[in-house]
Amino acid sequence: MFEGILNNVREKTPLVHCITNYVTVNDVANVLLACGGSPIMADDEEDALEITSICNALVLNIGTLNRRTIASMLKTGKRANELSHPVVLDPVGAGASSLRTETTFKLLKEVKFSVIRGNISEIKTVAKGKGTTRGVDADVSDVVTDRNLVETISFAKKLSAGTGSIIAITGPIDLVAEAHKAYVIRNGHPMMSKITGTGCMLTALIAAYYAANPERPLEATAAAVCAMGLSGELAYNRLVQTDGGTSSYRTYLIDAISKLDAQTLEGGLRIEIR
Amino acid sequence: MFEGILNNVREKTPLVHCITNYVTVNDVANVLLACGGSPIMADDEEDALEITSICNALVLNIGTLNRRTIASMLKTGKRANELSHPVVLDPVGAGASSLRTETTFKLLKEVKFSVIRGNISEIKTVAKGKGTTRGVDADVSDVVTDRNLVETISFAKKLSAGTGSIIAITGPIDLVAEAHKAYVIRNGHPMMSKITGTGCMLTALIAAYYAANPERPLEATAAAVCAMGLSGELAYNRLVQTDGGTSSYRTYLIDAISKLDAQTLEGGLRIEIR
Amino acid sequence: MFEGILNNVREKTPLVHCITNYVTVNDVANVLLACGGSPIMADDEEDALEITSICNALVLNIGTLNRRTIASMLKTGKRANELSHPVVLDPVGAGASSLRTETTFKLLKEVKFSVIRGNISEIKTVAKGKGTTRGVDADVSDVVTDRNLVETISFAKKLSAGTGSIIAITGPIDLVAEAHKAYVIRNGHPMMSKITGTGCMLTALIAAYYAANPERPLEATAAAVCAMGLSGELAYNRLVQTDGGTSSYRTYLIDAISKLDAQTLEGGLRIEIR
Repeated sequence: MFEGILNNVREKTPLVHCITNYVTVNDVANVLLACGGSPIMADDEEDALEITSICNALVLNIGTLNRRTIASMLKTGKRANELSHPVVLDPVGAGASSLRTETTFKLLKEVKFSVIRGNISEIKTVAKGKGTTRGVDADVSDVVTDRNLVETISFAKKLSAGTGSIIAITGPIDLVAEAHKAYVIRNGHPMMSKITGTGCMLTALIAAYYAANPERPLEATAAAVCAMGLSGELAYNRLVQTDGGTSSYRTYLIDAISKLDAQTLEGGLRIEIR
Repeated sequence: MFEGILNNVREKTPLVHCITNYVTVNDVANVLLACGGSPIMADDEEDALEITSICNALVLNIGTLNRRTIASMLKTGKRANELSHPVVLDPVGAGASSLRTETTFKLLKEVKFSVIRGNISEIKTVAKGKGTTRGVDADVSDVVTDRNLVETISFAKKLSAGTGSIIAITGPIDLVAEAHKAYVIRNGHPMMSKITGTGCMLTALIAAYYAANPERPLEATAAAVCAMGLSGELAYNRLVQTDGGTSSYRTYLIDAISKLDAQTLEGGLRIEIR
Repeated sequence: MFEGILNNVREKTPLVHCITNYVTVNDVANVLLACGGSPIMADDEEDALEITSICNALVLNIGTLNRRTIASMLKTGKRANELSHPVVLDPVGAGASSLRTETTFKLLKEVKFSVIRGNISEIKTVAKGKGTTRGVDADVSDVVTDRNLVETISFAKKLSAGTGSIIAITGPIDLVAEAHKAYVIRNGHPMMSKITGTGCMLTALIAAYYAANPERPLEATAAAVCAMGLSGELAYNRLVQTDGGTSSYRTYLIDAISKLDAQTLEGGLRIEIR
């Protein structure tokens, strides 16, 4: 289904510029290397503008934002747009505080995002910011399940149409949607929520997959979501054979991403098109 | 001895807001998840004020402080006080530089701490800041041992009476004291000092344990100290069965915290009341 | 060849102050502990000035620099010079952006570095900043190989003469040079480039080795480079016996540094003097 996508990442080594939070930044850098990409972190306004121009993609993650980094995100995002680089937004905690919500809105207004990835709460906040989903709150509950799947797919497609961005909603069931097509992905494992950074890592993975496959953006995004979820499953299979706990699981997760090949990915996909 | 305390953490999933140093922040987040809590990091002044209001506890760790984060710590600490959230101070390096010492004093003056956790040098600096321990320097040497245990217990109880905070002094022997009661804890392993962040992780663990057991603050704090020490022992037992070094030990330590259950904790306690 | 150097680190426990990037800072701290040293991170201008005075060495790593930390680096570097502490520069990304290049030049102008460690591109940028290597670009290509080894050794020796710093160029082949003597080191493994932070970790290791062996600076620097490379080999040997990927490799690398003894180091050296 995703022929060539993973191997393109390994062959092209996309350079991904991340303005990201300091909690999970090391995992993000290591996941980019593990998948075949290469990370650069730079958040000083002047430095970030130049660094992004030598990169192939940009990640804006608002996890531990502050005044200084918000300004950098806005300027760097616009520059990446000018350069036609894919730009991926991770609106960590949007909806949980005014600063995060307003920064998300500001970013959405000034930067064109190729992909927006978050959990359902964050993505609902994004929807409010675009004014495209008045009233949707009543329809979409806080975790995507089979019960609300149809509504959530419809919500994601509309949001994609409204924003022009691919929408990736992750949780027990993951959705990757554009205006007229959505992937429903059931890869992943509950242990992934017992370590910090799986969301941040996935956002960076999406940027690398997208940058290496610019002609197939929706598939590249879906492939990255599947790759992360499948790696989470493989990590769990390895964990149960050991004495390990959550920290071993983190190691095994990044290990699995580094060892994942196209055949394993294709064989492990749990995905449908809606 | 600590019936229900550990399980309360796992059942209530306390949300712990940390303004903490960037050296060990990832370990702190992962330990909070491992113990059954949930971490949020936010250090922008405006963001931190709002984030703390949706949390159950606050950690202020001065490990890599700067002007911007000091202001956030002061305001957020006061807000958490207004909300009656437990607030735990980790005065990393207090006594080693003027900025750290003065920031500790400022925090002690403006914020009411539920627990203050540090090594003996840091806690002695705290004592100076409260003006409660004139002359104590001569009595308390730099590591708690059986030789100076009686004096150090007395010092810790007096400091607790003076500050209104539970005092946790960690080292080869750990003390957890309030004005009229102290726990002496002999859990732990020397390997814990060969990795960075065990102190920072423990401070966060205390916040989670306290937040989930607000009616038993002293026991919750002591249980967290025992849980970390026992996990350090279990990690060492696992390490010697492998080729591992210090980095494996870090992994095993967090693994042990994630796998610790109430029965193992009760069975492994090395604690006495003074 | 390096008798006593490793054991001096373990016996003297040099305290290394790092103003370093937030991507790899945790690994840097853990590597310093693993080798027998002790880390302190402080980047606030006022705090850093005081902290450096209680330390034995200073690392300036420009990986995620910003206006605030640049000012701290300049002042702290000068203070460390006054105190005759070894100061090691890691010009991460020098040449990739104006801010990084100009900051490198400013640091080189105002601070006397004991050692400068970088990849060949970064070191070539350093050379431009010192004005010592006009035209050298044509001679030195981007990775040190046997084909360009003679020219690169000559380049490194000249740069050392011009700067008064030991020059450490790392890559598939590592060079450690002073004006009239260079070590060519073939320890290491390609997997080291599949995780983030091996360069940053090595820079810190050099600072610890240098601080514990001030009377043998060139040998101490070369020994640190060999220790890191050999640990990379040992980590790989361990990796192939497991299911592990890149994250396990990171763990095994730091493990190997923590377990390395003088005999293993001497027996594993792949080094020649030129």
